[in-house]
Amino acid sequence: MTYERIDHLYSERLKIVQSPDVFSFSLDAVLLAHFTKIRSGSKVVDLCAGNGAVGLFLNYQVPKAHITMMELQPRLADMAQRSIALNHVENDVEMICAPIAEYSKYLKKDSIDTVTCNPPYFINEPQSTKNPNHYLALARHEITTNLVEVLAVGSHLLKMGGHYFMVHRPERLPEILLTMQQHRLAPKRLQFVYPKANKEANIILIEAIKDGKKQGLKVLPPLIVYGENNTYTSQVQTILDGDTPS
Amino acid sequence: MTYERIDHLYSERLKIVQSPDVFSFSLDAVLLAHFTKIRSGSKVVDLCAGNGAVGLFLNYQVPKAHITMMELQPRLADMAQRSIALNHVENDVEMICAPIAEYSKYLKKDSIDTVTCNPPYFINEPQSTKNPNHYLALARHEITTNLVEVLAVGSHLLKMGGHYFMVHRPERLPEILLTMQQHRLAPKRLQFVYPKANKEANIILIEAIKDGKKQGLKVLPPLIVYGENNTYTSQVQTILDGDTPS
Repeated sequence: MTYERIDHLYSERLKIVQSPDVFSFSLDAVLLAHFTKIRSGSKVVDLCAGNGAVGLFLNYQVPKAHITMMELQPRLADMAQRSIALNHVENDVEMICAPIAEYSKYLKKDSIDTVTCNPPYFINEPQSTKNPNHYLALARHEITTNLVEVLAVGSHLLKMGGHYFMVHRPERLPEILLTMQQHRLAPKRLQFVYPKANKEANIILIEAIKDGKKQGLKVLPPLIVYGENNTYTSQVQTILDGDTPS
Repeated sequence: MTYERIDHLYSERLKIVQSPDVFSFSLDAVLLAHFTKIRSGSKVVDLCAGNGAVGLFLNYQVPKAHITMMELQPRLADMAQRSIALNHVENDVEMICAPIAEYSKYLKKDSIDTVTCNPPYFINEPQSTKNPNHYLALARHEITTNLVEVLAVGSHLLKMGGHYFMVHRPERLPEILLTMQQHRLAPKRLQFVYPKANKEANIILIEAIKDGKKQGLKVLPPLIVYGENNTYTSQVQTILDGDTPS
């Protein structure tokens, strides 16, 4: 039996089933949910949902949006399902356990207001070292899905003018911008996350609009994770404490 | 007669002919020169050289490189020529007054180690407000050249493995990355410059390698220009004082 725990987030008000042996959400998921802006009543799809952290964070921020999560791995989808129950949000959040390529079995094309995605970051090269934990290997490497697929599926799902929010790695940026443009997604907001003020960025947050105007990308102020003494900066601590987005 | 002045930079050791009425180099040129890494003995071409600030900064940093500057506007090229004389660097720095499209009259293809460029930033849209100062209008708007041309010309000039360093605006980033890749330039280092820690980036610095590997873009630590009290941060003050690059 695998060890699991229930983490309490946002000043104890949100519960998430986690398992260090299987899958735990990371700071990336927290930052993606904070970066994402959704409206009450809107339809949201979270692709590559893992244990459901991004969808649950979004529900916490905007309770009256309808959030559909898709996750391929049954073990992770089950953790998400139990978190949904623990937080009593079955009316607003649902989990579909399926490959995202099968989205059209469950969801209508051109019907979604907002897509979010925290996809596998690493190209699946034969020689690349993968996590021996199979759950994490699938979550981190492009084994069962890849950048082109997560952007193509999201773009199909979105209405014209719908918003796509993604977290990824800076080294993939040229490919991300190119692939977005090949799939009717115009990059609009980009934020770089630096582990410290004097370190290279290790996370990017990007928002694109389906069929948006090509011009007008904004690069938001830098997000610095750790301060001088290796504690979270107030910028990041505020996000972890679950401020509601502006 | 137009007013001119001679600015002394880098703790008074470098003299640059400037004219607020015609053209003065900006922080962008200083940052580009600092971002650029050149080797002693290498061949460097600075495109859209203006009054020659970038080339003179580079010569100051690495005196034994051969630097060729190209500038279309005779008035600015003449200022650069006089700065070259004032600093007694005629043996290492030269100015060609010509459109960059005519590069092959003066320089061999595939022969240059490093290209630098501080190009016009703004798309020349009929309705866009341009500077009534004709010199500045040409320097800032894509009237006589444009992004595709500065990248294509630089790529033609560079040897395989040669480095292209450019300063530009964040809103043009998707187009810059795409156009680079269409011209055999692989983006390798990217740095965002933020006017203040809590402001959107307004300058990007980008390095690409001709025929370089596609993977492996790094996003350098953020460069913040002004601190709390609206004075330069120590990061930028050090650059303005003319530290030699690491």
